[in-house]
Formats: sequence, C-alpha cells, structure tokens
Amino acid sequence: MYREGRAENTVVTLAPGVTVGGDTVVVIGGPCSVESEEQILSAARIVKEAGGMALRGGAFKPRSSPYSFQGMGKKGLALLATAGRETGLPIVTEAMDAEGAEQVAEVAACIQIGARNMQNYSLLKTVGRMRTPVMLKRGMAATINDLLLSAEYILAEGNENVILCERGVRSFDPAARNMLDLTAIPIVHRLSHLPIIADPSHGTGLRDKVIPMARAAVAAGADGVLIEVHPEPDRALSDGAQSLYPDQFAQLVGELRAVAAAIGRNIPPAKTGTA
Amino acid sequence: MYREGRAENTVVTLAPGVTVGGDTVVVIGGPCSVESEEQILSAARIVKEAGGMALRGGAFKPRSSPYSFQGMGKKGLALLATAGRETGLPIVTEAMDAEGAEQVAEVAACIQIGARNMQNYSLLKTVGRMRTPVMLKRGMAATINDLLLSAEYILAEGNENVILCERGVRSFDPAARNMLDLTAIPIVHRLSHLPIIADPSHGTGLRDKVIPMARAAVAAGADGVLIEVHPEPDRALSDGAQSLYPDQFAQLVGELRAVAAAIGRNIPPAKTGTA
Amino acid sequence: MYREGRAENTVVTLAPGVTVGGDTVVVIGGPCSVESEEQILSAARIVKEAGGMALRGGAFKPRSSPYSFQGMGKKGLALLATAGRETGLPIVTEAMDAEGAEQVAEVAACIQIGARNMQNYSLLKTVGRMRTPVMLKRGMAATINDLLLSAEYILAEGNENVILCERGVRSFDPAARNMLDLTAIPIVHRLSHLPIIADPSHGTGLRDKVIPMARAAVAAGADGVLIEVHPEPDRALSDGAQSLYPDQFAQLVGELRAVAAAIGRNIPPAKTGTA
Amino acid sequence: MYREGRAENTVVTLAPGVTVGGDTVVVIGGPCSVESEEQILSAARIVKEAGGMALRGGAFKPRSSPYSFQGMGKKGLALLATAGRETGLPIVTEAMDAEGAEQVAEVAACIQIGARNMQNYSLLKTVGRMRTPVMLKRGMAATINDLLLSAEYILAEGNENVILCERGVRSFDPAARNMLDLTAIPIVHRLSHLPIIADPSHGTGLRDKVIPMARAAVAAGADGVLIEVHPEPDRALSDGAQSLYPDQFAQLVGELRAVAAAIGRNIPPAKTGTA
Repeated sequence: MYREGRAENTVVTLAPGVTVGGDTVVVIGGPCSVESEEQILSAARIVKEAGGMALRGGAFKPRSSPYSFQGMGKKGLALLATAGRETGLPIVTEAMDAEGAEQVAEVAACIQIGARNMQNYSLLKTVGRMRTPVMLKRGMAATINDLLLSAEYILAEGNENVILCERGVRSFDPAARNMLDLTAIPIVHRLSHLPIIADPSHGTGLRDKVIPMARAAVAAGADGVLIEVHPEPDRALSDGAQSLYPDQFAQLVGELRAVAAAIGRNIPPAKTGTA
Repeated sequence: MYREGRAENTVVTLAPGVTVGGDTVVVIGGPCSVESEEQILSAARIVKEAGGMALRGGAFKPRSSPYSFQGMGKKGLALLATAGRETGLPIVTEAMDAEGAEQVAEVAACIQIGARNMQNYSLLKTVGRMRTPVMLKRGMAATINDLLLSAEYILAEGNENVILCERGVRSFDPAARNMLDLTAIPIVHRLSHLPIIADPSHGTGLRDKVIPMARAAVAAGADGVLIEVHPEPDRALSDGAQSLYPDQFAQLVGELRAVAAAIGRNIPPAKTGTA
Repeated sequence: MYREGRAENTVVTLAPGVTVGGDTVVVIGGPCSVESEEQILSAARIVKEAGGMALRGGAFKPRSSPYSFQGMGKKGLALLATAGRETGLPIVTEAMDAEGAEQVAEVAACIQIGARNMQNYSLLKTVGRMRTPVMLKRGMAATINDLLLSAEYILAEGNENVILCERGVRSFDPAARNMLDLTAIPIVHRLSHLPIIADPSHGTGLRDKVIPMARAAVAAGADGVLIEVHPEPDRALSDGAQSLYPDQFAQLVGELRAVAAAIGRNIPPAKTGTA
Repeated sequence: MYREGRAENTVVTLAPGVTVGGDTVVVIGGPCSVESEEQILSAARIVKEAGGMALRGGAFKPRSSPYSFQGMGKKGLALLATAGRETGLPIVTEAMDAEGAEQVAEVAACIQIGARNMQNYSLLKTVGRMRTPVMLKRGMAATINDLLLSAEYILAEGNENVILCERGVRSFDPAARNMLDLTAIPIVHRLSHLPIIADPSHGTGLRDKVIPMARAAVAAGADGVLIEVHPEPDRALSDGAQSLYPDQFAQLVGELRAVAAAIGRNIPPAKTGTA
C-alpha cells in the first residue's frame, strides 16, 4: 500500500459515477443497524434525497457484549438489497467472518471490515481473494502503520480495491467515545496510494459533534465521510446517540459541499428521482 | 468557565480589531523561539504580509532537557517588543513562572501558559490576578474537563480574558508528534463560553501536515490557529521540522480564508503597510 | 464471567496436576514460534527441567505485516505434539480462525486467542462451542470490561474453561513494547470468577525486564505467567529480543517460587524424568 | 541521571537509618492531606507502629478544581512538624512553587514535586538549588525519558538527592484511576543511578488494589512505596477511596516484608517506642 513505485492514487468504484479517491468527496450515510424494511427504506431515501452517494447499514453487528443486539444477519442483507434497488444507492455493510463475507458480497458494493477485525488476518486474506471493494476501518489502538500493513494483507491477495477509514482511537478522555485522529488523513495520503475516509459518528459518539467533525475531515482532505443517520434516532437499536436526525443529515451534506468547494474538491448536488 | 448562567461567548481582545471568539478566525504566526533581532523582525513581517493578526515567539522556552536551548529570556522579550512595534502585531509569548509573567505582561498582548504548566496552579493564580489575556494550552494528557478546570483557576482570580488552545495530546502512535484532538473544539464550545484555538504545529509536529490540519481546525469551528513559521526553518534552534516556510504560511492563510468563508466566518485580507 | 451468583473461582485443568486458578501459580514457557523439531524439542526440555508446567509455541502466527514469518502451520502443530509427548507438558498454542481452532484442539490442551482477535466474535463463538480450554489475551486497547465481555462470548456458548491473560496495552511511552497493566489482575479477581495470568514477555518486549515483571505479576496475584524462552534467542525467527536464555528461565522459575511462597501460593519443584 | 560514567546507585538519606536506594525497601505512609492535629498525629502513630519509615501528608494540595479543598498550607506544615517530632518519622510533603518549597524545606526531610509539576522547570530549578532531598513524581503522560530529563533539571543545579516515583499514567481504561506502570522500575534502574519508588494509592485509586500492587512494586524492585493511610478513610477530605484503613496498612507492611525477603531485600521490623 506504500507509495513506492506507484505515483497515482487508487480510485475505488462503488457504482457508476460513485468513486472514492478522486476529486469527489463521497458521503456514505445510513443507520448503524438494519432494523426493519420500513426503517432501512426510509433511511435510504433520506440519504438519497440529501445527496448521499452510498448507503451504509449493519446486518452483522460486532458488539462488545454477547447480549447486545447482534444484527438481523442474512435477513438484514436482503433488506439492504431492497433499499439499494429502490434508491439506486450502492451498499456498504460489514462482514465479520469468511461466510459472512460471501453473503455480503452478493448484495454489497463494498465489504466493511470493522475496527475490531482490523487484525483478523484470516478475514483480511479472505476478502483479499474476492473482487468486491473493501473498506478497512482502523483498529482502536492501531497505529497508522498497522492500518497500512493490514491493508497490505488484502492487496497481497490480489484485491486492490481498498478504502481505509479513520474512525477514532481509544484515548484517556471520556469527553468523547473515541478520539478522532484526523491527522491520519494527510499521513495516509503521503504514505499510501489508497483513499481514506472518516467516520465522525463513531469517531465522536456525539450527535452534535458529527457535523463539525465531518466538515473538519473534508477540510483535512478526506476522500469521503461515513455518517450514521436514522429516521428516528431515539428509537434506534444501536448507536442512537450518535445518529443524525434526517434534517441534520441534509444540513451536513450542504455544509460539506461548501467546505469541499473551498479546497478544490466537490460533492455533487442530490439527484432527484429514484434509480 | 462552564456555560451555566452565561449564554454569551467570551470575546478576548488582543489589539484594536484583533479579537478572539467572534466571527473572525484569528491567525497567530511566528517562530517557536526568538533567536535574533533579524530573525524575529523577518518573521513578524512574513506574518503581517500574509495576513496574520498576531505574532507568536518564545523567549522563555520549556524544554524537556535542561541542555536544550532555553530561549533568550528578557532579551527575547525586548526583541518581540521591537517586532511588535514595527509591524503593529500584538505579541503572544509564554511565561513559565510568576516573575516571567510580570515581564511578559510588559510587552505582550497575551501570556501563553504552555502545556507542561497547565496544572501549575500557582502560575495560573498569578496570571489570574493580572489583566493581560491568557492563552492556556491543553496539557499532554489533560482531559477537556481538566483544561476547563485549569481555566477556572484563572477566572476565579478575576481575569476573564482566557483563550484555550488545543495542541495535541500524547498517543500511542509515533506517526505524529502528538495527536491533535480537534473534537475538543466543538466540545469546548458546547461546555464553555471561552474561545478555543488550535495549534496544528505542535499538534502534528510535521510541516506538511500543518496546512491540512489548520484547515480542519477552522472547519471544526476553531476561533483561531497558532502556527509556527520561520524565515529559515532549516536553521531554527527549535521545532524547525514543524515550522512552515514563509510561502507556505501565505498559502495557509489563503486556504483558511476560503474554509472560514465556507462556514460563515471570516479572515480579513492582509493589511498593507506597517503599524 | 461476572461474580454475580457465583462465589467460587473457576479452575481450569490443562493436564493431570496442572491447573490454573488454584493455589499453584502455573509457569508456561516456550518460544514465540515453532521453528523446527530440534528447536521445539529443545525448548520443551528447557521448560520441563526448569519446572515449567506447560509448553507454549506458535504454529499460526498473527503478524502485523503479511511479509513477516507467518508460522509453520499444521506442521508446527505436529512438532508441538511431539514435544508434548516427549516431555509430558500440555501444549498451549494459538488459533486464528475456525479451521485452525479445530486443528489446534487436536494437539493442544489450551487454545490461545491472541490480542488481535480478542474481539473476533465469530472465532470466540467457535471456541465457545468446543470443550478445549481457551486462553483469551487482552486486546491492545481493550478495557478490562471489554476483556470480560469477550470471555462471555465463549462462556455463553458453553465452554467454561476460560483463562484470561494480561499482555500489556498500547501506551504513549516507547520505553517498552507495551505497558503491562498488572492492576488488571486484582481487578479481574474482584469482578470475575475466571483465572488470569500475565505475559511479561509481550508485556514489556525487553528480555531483562521479563524476570522482574514476572515476579511482580505473581506478587499481584496472577494465577500464572506465560514466558517466552528460546534455546537460542539470537537466532529466533520472531520475538528474539524478548525471549529468555535457557539459564534465565531456570532462574526465573526459582525467583517466582520464592515470591509465590511469600504470598501463600506455590510453584511445585521441577519433576525429574520425562513423561 | 543516566548511568553513563556512574556505576554506583544514588542512595538518598531521609533520616538516620532511613535511606532510599539501598537494600532496604522504604515504606512511606500517611494521609493524602493534613486535616487536623488529631488526624495527622493519629496517622503518624499508625504508620510508625506498623513499621512505616517516613510520614507523608499534603499541606499544599494541587487539585484539578479550584473549588476543591486546597490543603491547610503553612498550618499544615506545622502540624506535620509536630507529628514528625512526636514519632521520629521524617516528613515527605509536596511543594507547588518556590515560596512553598522554602517553607516545606524547613520541616520536611523530602520535598515532593507532584505529577502535575513534573515539567514545571522553574520549580525544578528552585529545588535543585536547595539541599533537601526531592521526590519527583512522574507526570500523567510523561515518558520514562521525560521523567529522567526532569530529574536532570534538579541534578544539574547541584542537588543530587533525587528519588523518582512511579504513580500511574493516564490510560483509556476507566477500571482504575490511573495505569500503574511498574515496568518503569526496572527500566529506571537500568538507565539511571537514581532510586525509584511506587505509589500504588494514586496508581490505582482503589483501596483494595493497593496491597497487591504494593507487593508487585516491591517484587519488581521498587526502592520503596508511598501509601495513603488515614485514621478514618471514610471521613477523609481528599482521596478517601484509595486510603487504607489502619489495620490494612499494618497488614500491608507485613506482606511487603515477606516479598522483599523473597527477592533478597528487607523491610526492618517496626520499632517500638517514640523518637
């Protein structure tokens, strides 16, 4: 993943016209978890109408406690597929093991590897042998070098479509859920040809910090942002406290568009109509 | 320093027309250390011409090793005063003890309390009894709450002119000198009425990361940025590796102006002529 | 894993007379990686003769870089089995995925889940459905509560034979490879009925710190220690810098025996003869 | 402070027969704060009777909030002097600034520099020009190298009687108040000729973790331990939750004596009678 011998940046295509790593800053939105057909369809429409370019939503959820909601599994994937078809948005969703990766690849444009699995090398090799793009999230105490080395596990198996994601690291300060390390963005851009996006939702864990930190991520040069938005955050089964309300998400995209323009990048206007 | 019972923001005036905490985003530039009359005058002119609004430069330097350059002391303060008079820029410089604070207050518009002294309560009380504005830098492992409580030591003595400064905290990742915690900016704005600026020079320790992270700080809502710039960074006695070259500083101010405008704030154009 | 409703401690049996969680402090020794038949047999004899009670050694190695030595795999497991048969020492070795766990269970008395996989929940569930004891290492930025919740993934599937392992966490100080958090030992003993051992080899990464920190772990109440020892540390394929020389390992067991006795626990004398 | 050119260890004398850095492991006990004559006299007797060799107690208290109890100041010093005279115990107490250091030196055998002032270089230079021994506590995010460099500020001014103190650093885990980094002990012993003690009271913040972690500190090679004990912890004005009950302190000294003996060091039996 290092730049040596490779000057040009990797650009990962999620769907026709939706690329990560070029001039466009990609906004990926959606709920933490798929909870029901109504919920994910509603979320997808909110994302689409506000100008989001891809839909996120978890069907397999890695939760610290075995007694927390673990996601809808295969049924959740089917609902994501439905929401993708209806809105035309490509799907980004997490896989936690080899079997799940195969299932995810059937419906998703991008397989997410979560922070907890960043050094699950068996899983990295598995998705490295696939052709679906992979979004690799930084581990909670992973150095930037660790992140790049984990990406190399995927690249070394032949899958060059890797997007990195800064999502905050563990810190001593309980003021936020994690410490969003935005300096990782220019550091990765210097060291690697891979694109990097930021996840200010997990990176802060605080709804009212998501908009300013998403703006900051774009200003720092992020190739995209991953944002949690839920039709009804107060009823979310997971991560409700960091999910934006629908109108906040629309406001966010507008603010990001202005910041992107200020640094010579762009976020296209929302497309009207469905796929 | 908490918002309770105080809705309006504190606005700190450094000089006529130079305020921290209002709509304007203040750019404070200068070298890590005052090294000579020629160096500080040159630096001051670079800052002024590029649109910087205040001059930073250390006369008293807290260095981890007693054998590192410790600053020019009182002579350095005199040179700062000269540079301030010539350019009309207000001076921001650090004090390390009660005696130094008195000396600094004679020439500076703002007394800087460094990260290592953030919990030097005797010093905080001393500057709290003065009327000169104080810039309080976050300690290397201070929580945001610790920072606010330290500010309260100053406020409680009667000095309400306090500017907070995020300058990066210690982390496990050697990729950067510190981890710049930009989320501190919206968190402080929510909890406190005090303004907060960011120091991406110490926050990253890497020259080519200063511009993107300064942009990110402004996008996150910072009330100003503190930037190290040196006429000849390669010959600097301290912090050369994180000091901008003069042309980079001018580029920085331009980029920050665009980002500030994108979020409804402003950085005024550079004034021509001297004070 | 919490104590609620369960007063007595879990005692995990690795072999007849080798239990973790009772009065005896278990010393588990061996190389980082299995490298050859000669190497692992030699290491096993060193461990046995010094009074070690179980043999560790990696066949599947999770390495940050895909280009580092990845272990001998199944062949390494076969060599471990040979070394175990010859010395009578039960085997502790790591599994990185479901397939590997099945293979490990055929030869090992205890399946190690490494720090990088502490939140690989699919793997935790897999070993939870097995009956072989599991040693679960704390993740590099896992809180003690995270560690206990990960253990619960195993217990909830029915496998109650779980040993926890403190192996150091990431810190800001490069003076050691990790920061060994020995306070985790009494904290776990208060919160949970599970035994906990310490790994001062990974916890410090520094050979000459292993003996004092192993003593400290025992004094803090650890139910065992996991120690890297290699017949020829200077020729080790991985972790040579933290592996003890054979005579240091023998010295270590003697010192630990004295400390254990001082706090009312014991380490039995070395048994002469082979299995 | 580095070993280069200096093979023998520094041994600091607190009182006739009370040295830090030799074979004896020094137990220093007392309350967080001096609260009243009755309290400090009672605490001193508890320490003396249990076999403690020096009395700690704060008269000047650095507190994160200006509204917390700040200590009794000069009056507290006078009470410490009384307690010292009555029991014959040398006094260890903190100074926060130059003026306080002079006052402390009049009654104390050792001036403590707290973690928050570890890089208050003006204060370090001040106590460096004095002859009273200094105990320098590690800062909350100070590397071991930072600690040694801060010690050098004292040594460079001429005061060679410096004792280092590991008291825990900031970490991501809220399970304990700080993370006690006992590996600092053998690292300091390797790098420096200065003695180092441990403070498991601040290092854990949890009363029932103090005894096992004090044992661990001694097993790791600490030259002493600093322990908070209060006649009535539940009524303490500061740090009550980490202060031992009197009988726990007596138990602690006994356990430490056994561990010290196990590693070839010693803690002398309690002396009967007063000074």
